[in-house]
Amino acid sequence: MLHFQSHDLDEMNKIYRLNMINSITGYKSAHLIGTQSSEGLENLAIFSSVVHLGSNPALLGFILRPTTVPRHTYSNFKSTGVFTLNAVNAEQIEDAHHTSAKYPEDISEFDQTTLEVERKKEWDAPFVKNAPIQLGCRYLNEYHIKENDTLMIVSKIEHIYLANELLQEDGWVQLEKGNVVSINGLDGYTLPKLLERFPYARPKN
Amino acid sequence: MLHFQSHDLDEMNKIYRLNMINSITGYKSAHLIGTQSSEGLENLAIFSSVVHLGSNPALLGFILRPTTVPRHTYSNFKSTGVFTLNAVNAEQIEDAHHTSAKYPEDISEFDQTTLEVERKKEWDAPFVKNAPIQLGCRYLNEYHIKENDTLMIVSKIEHIYLANELLQEDGWVQLEKGNVVSINGLDGYTLPKLLERFPYARPKN
Repeated sequence: MLHFQSHDLDEMNKIYRLNMINSITGYKSAHLIGTQSSEGLENLAIFSSVVHLGSNPALLGFILRPTTVPRHTYSNFKSTGVFTLNAVNAEQIEDAHHTSAKYPEDISEFDQTTLEVERKKEWDAPFVKNAPIQLGCRYLNEYHIKENDTLMIVSKIEHIYLANELLQEDGWVQLEKGNVVSINGLDGYTLPKLLERFPYARPKN
Repeated sequence: MLHFQSHDLDEMNKIYRLNMINSITGYKSAHLIGTQSSEGLENLAIFSSVVHLGSNPALLGFILRPTTVPRHTYSNFKSTGVFTLNAVNAEQIEDAHHTSAKYPEDISEFDQTTLEVERKKEWDAPFVKNAPIQLGCRYLNEYHIKENDTLMIVSKIEHIYLANELLQEDGWVQLEKGNVVSINGLDGYTLPKLLERFPYARPKN
């Protein structure tokens, strides 16, 4: 096995280190976060840091780096209080990745890709049409992670829209049925296939 | 599409809601966290909430629910300051899932599964033998998420052990080369296949 230590990381080329550290922590979810500004300008940005926080209430978190692209996302949901979270399917990966390009605030990523806006009357943020899972989320709080000046955003899931074929009998949502992708590192898009579902684990006798 | 709102979630059967909300936020990474107590008792527990925080310094976070199984994990890394993070490969999924069973503190999950301890002289926590990626992590800080009484643990990656075939020319770690799995919900284990890697996204003219 290869072995790298802290001082090896310190001395690495920046891009090489970005690639390594972003991929070494395993597969990540792929989401497009849709927001709009108080003036109604729409924004869409890819995130791979969504994490489950709890089921009751239904809470999720994600990490925001104040110094990078999704800054418009932040100012938008801070002013409107809401955003959408849209699962990325295999047909959308090229466009989804393109939302990471640095466009000025008055350019909507919806206009620069083939991704289409879907509006729902109950929510003041744009959903992505044909996303197999669409979540309407309300901003609740943020925690400043002082170790590297990032933010952990905490939000509540208030609306779930779900393609019928994903939902299984016991509430489990089978992502494979919607060709939902996961991300390897900064730029590798993968399609997972189910190996097995296990029952609730109990101690052996 | 199906539509569920907050009040639908409030009224759901608990297990049904657990399945739904744990799977609705997309694919998650699969890691075995290895720790030992100050008395040297080893512990191993599966986590699916690891999130990338930054590359320089190399930081990751994960969520800990104080009321559930991995409590031993917490008390151990709080007393020793360190833990290991081991990627789960396709051959290890049944045993990896079994580490979520509630064993008393004096029972090591290594003894209840076929997973084997690998010791490295530079680190006071057990690694999982044959894990395609093994990380030696140091606890830095924790943030109490008051919205649902969970903890976000922040840690620094100090050692990376990596099977040779995973590392690509530009530092990208191709998880597929190690049959690394990802998790769908609480109990679905999946194997991702690479669709495509994209170049750095730049605005279109």
